[in-house]
Amino acid sequence: MDKKAAVIGTGSWGTALAIVLADNGYNVEMWGRSEEAVKEINESHTNEKYLKGCRLPDNITAASNLQDVIGGTNTIVLAVPTKAIRQVLDDIQKVQSEPITIVHVSKGIEPDSLLRISQIIEQAMEPENLKDIVVLSGPSHAEEVSLRHPTTVVASSGNLEAAVKVQNMFMNNQFRVYTNTDMVGVEIGGALKNIIALAAGVGDGLGYGDNAKAALITRGLVEISRLGVKMGANPLTFSGLSGIGDLIVTCTSVHSRNWRAGNMLGKGMNLDEVLDNMGMVVEGVRTTKAAKQLAAEYGVSMPITDALYDILFNGVDAREAVDQLMQRNKTHEMEDLVVLLGDALEEE
Amino acid sequence: MDKKAAVIGTGSWGTALAIVLADNGYNVEMWGRSEEAVKEINESHTNEKYLKGCRLPDNITAASNLQDVIGGTNTIVLAVPTKAIRQVLDDIQKVQSEPITIVHVSKGIEPDSLLRISQIIEQAMEPENLKDIVVLSGPSHAEEVSLRHPTTVVASSGNLEAAVKVQNMFMNNQFRVYTNTDMVGVEIGGALKNIIALAAGVGDGLGYGDNAKAALITRGLVEISRLGVKMGANPLTFSGLSGIGDLIVTCTSVHSRNWRAGNMLGKGMNLDEVLDNMGMVVEGVRTTKAAKQLAAEYGVSMPITDALYDILFNGVDAREAVDQLMQRNKTHEMEDLVVLLGDALEEE
Repeated sequence: MDKKAAVIGTGSWGTALAIVLADNGYNVEMWGRSEEAVKEINESHTNEKYLKGCRLPDNITAASNLQDVIGGTNTIVLAVPTKAIRQVLDDIQKVQSEPITIVHVSKGIEPDSLLRISQIIEQAMEPENLKDIVVLSGPSHAEEVSLRHPTTVVASSGNLEAAVKVQNMFMNNQFRVYTNTDMVGVEIGGALKNIIALAAGVGDGLGYGDNAKAALITRGLVEISRLGVKMGANPLTFSGLSGIGDLIVTCTSVHSRNWRAGNMLGKGMNLDEVLDNMGMVVEGVRTTKAAKQLAAEYGVSMPITDALYDILFNGVDAREAVDQLMQRNKTHEMEDLVVLLGDALEEE
Repeated sequence: MDKKAAVIGTGSWGTALAIVLADNGYNVEMWGRSEEAVKEINESHTNEKYLKGCRLPDNITAASNLQDVIGGTNTIVLAVPTKAIRQVLDDIQKVQSEPITIVHVSKGIEPDSLLRISQIIEQAMEPENLKDIVVLSGPSHAEEVSLRHPTTVVASSGNLEAAVKVQNMFMNNQFRVYTNTDMVGVEIGGALKNIIALAAGVGDGLGYGDNAKAALITRGLVEISRLGVKMGANPLTFSGLSGIGDLIVTCTSVHSRNWRAGNMLGKGMNLDEVLDNMGMVVEGVRTTKAAKQLAAEYGVSMPITDALYDILFNGVDAREAVDQLMQRNKTHEMEDLVVLLGDALEEE
C-alpha cells in the first residue's frame, strides 16, 4: 500500500493514533517540534517519554519540517495541546497546497474566548484552506491503544461524509470507530469530563469510596448534559462513548492526570502545590474556570463545577465543599434527569 | 427517641442498612435464621462474616423469632437473597398483625417466572397484608456504607408517598436518598447490571483494559435500557443512580462478586469451576439466563447478554465471544442511543 497519513504532535495520543494508522497500512509521518523526539522516532522507533516500552511500526517516521509532513495528504490529525493549536495552524497554512480536513483529538475549552476546539480551528483557518473538521473522541488511554487493546471511539463532524472517511481510516479489529454528527456534544463531553475527574480525585483523596465516585459520575453526567444541551448539543451524545464512556475511564483510572491532581487536592494540597507537583498542564483546572463562565452565560446550574471552582480558586476546604455538595436539598431524581431528554431548554 | 425498625436478613447489605437506621435514631431489630449470627449481633455487636471489623451501634439487636422482630412497626426492610423471598414472606404473613410496607433491597429476576422482585412480593403476599412496596437501590457497597462514607441511592415506589416515607427513614448526611416513581426501571437496572459486571470481569480476565471496560459499560447501558423500556420503564431511570451509577460501581470494583466470577471466566475457567471456586451464589449467572429469555419475549437485541450467555452455557471461548462483540458491524452511534429517549418502542 502507498497511502500517506500526517499526525501533528508527538505526544502519547498522537503517537498511539499513528500506530493505529500504521497498522491499517498507512505510511505515517509525524510532525514534532523537538528534534530529539523526531530523531528517536526515526532511529529507535520508540517514543519513550510518552509511550514507555512501545516499539513503533517501521512505517511511522517523523520530521520537524511541516511542509514535508503534510505534503501528499489532505487529511491532518491534529494532536497538540489546546493552547498550541492556533500557532500550529498558522504554520500549517503557510505551507499547505490544498484545502485540508483536520481531525482534532484535543479536549478542552479555550480560556476567555470560551471556544470549543472546532471553533478555534474555524477561527484560525482561512476558509479556503479548510475542507472539514472531524473530532475523534471516546474512552481511550493511549497506552492501551498502543498495546492493541480493544478500544471504541466516535468520529464526529457536521458533515457525515467526512466522519465516515475518518472512520474508514482508523477502523480495525481492535480500534472501533462509530460516527456521530453532533460535534458540539462530543467536544463538550470531552472537555467537561476533566472537571468531574478532578472532583473524583478530590473524593478519593478525602478517603471517600466507590459509592461516592459512582454518584459523582452520575450527577456529573447530568450537569455536563445540562450545559451541553443549552449550547446546542444532542442530549443523547452524553450517554454515548464520548460522554459517559470517556467520563468513566477518566474518573476511574489512576493514570488520569486530572484524577491525580484532584487526589492531591483532596489530600490537602492547594492548587499551586499541586501544579508544582504535577509539573505539567492539568487541563481540567482551566476547563473548570471556562465551565463556570459558560454556566453563568447560559444560566445553568452546575453544582459539581461550582464546588470544584471554590476548592481551586476560592480556598474553600475540600471536605467542606464536597460535604456541602452531598447535602444539597434535592429529593426527586427525575427533576434532574429530565435534562437528558433535551426538554430542559423549554423548562428552565 | 423510641422509633422501631425491622430488618429481615443479616447479610452485609441488611446490616449496613440497619446501621443507617440506627444512626438515625431507630431501635433496629434484625431477623436472622442463624442462631449464631443473632447471638453475635446481640453479644459482640459485630457481624464479622459480612462486615469485617465493624462495630454495630448498641441500638441494633437481633432475634430469630419473626413475630418479635416485626412487632411494633409496619415497615419491613427485606434484605434476603432473591430465592429466599417467597419463604420469608410466607413466614411473615403467619405472624403479622397489620398491613405492612415492604422495603426490598434485592437485585435479581426470578428464573423461569421472569418476575421482578416487587412482582414476586405482590404474588406472594395476600393483598390485605400488603400496604406498599418500595425498592431501595443505587451505587452502594455495604462496607462503605458501614464506614459512613458518602453514598446516594434512590427509593422507588409506584406510590410516591411511600417512597418519601422511606426516604425520610434512611436519609442522613452521609446516606442521601432520592425518590423515583419508576419501580420497573429501578428493578431492571439493579438486576441487569450484574450481567454487565460479569462481562466486565471477563474482559479484565482476558487482559483487556479500561478502554474496553468503559465501552462495555456504555454499550451495556444501552441494551439494559432497550429491554427496560419495552418492559415499561422510563428510559431516564437508566441514566440515574440505580442505572448507570450502580452499573459503574459494580463493573469497576474488584469487590464485586459478579466481576470476580467474570474475571475467572476470562482467565479460562468454565462455569462449574468458577462456581466451585466462588462457593456462593453469583446472581448475574441466573440473571443472564433470565435476560436472554426476556430479550426473546420482548424481541430486543442484547448483544452483550448473548455473548455472555454463549460463554456461560454454550462453551464458547471467552476471547472469541468478546472479539465478536467488538467486531459487530455497527457504525452510527445514534442508531443505538435513541433507545434512551424511549422512542424505541415505536421504531423497532
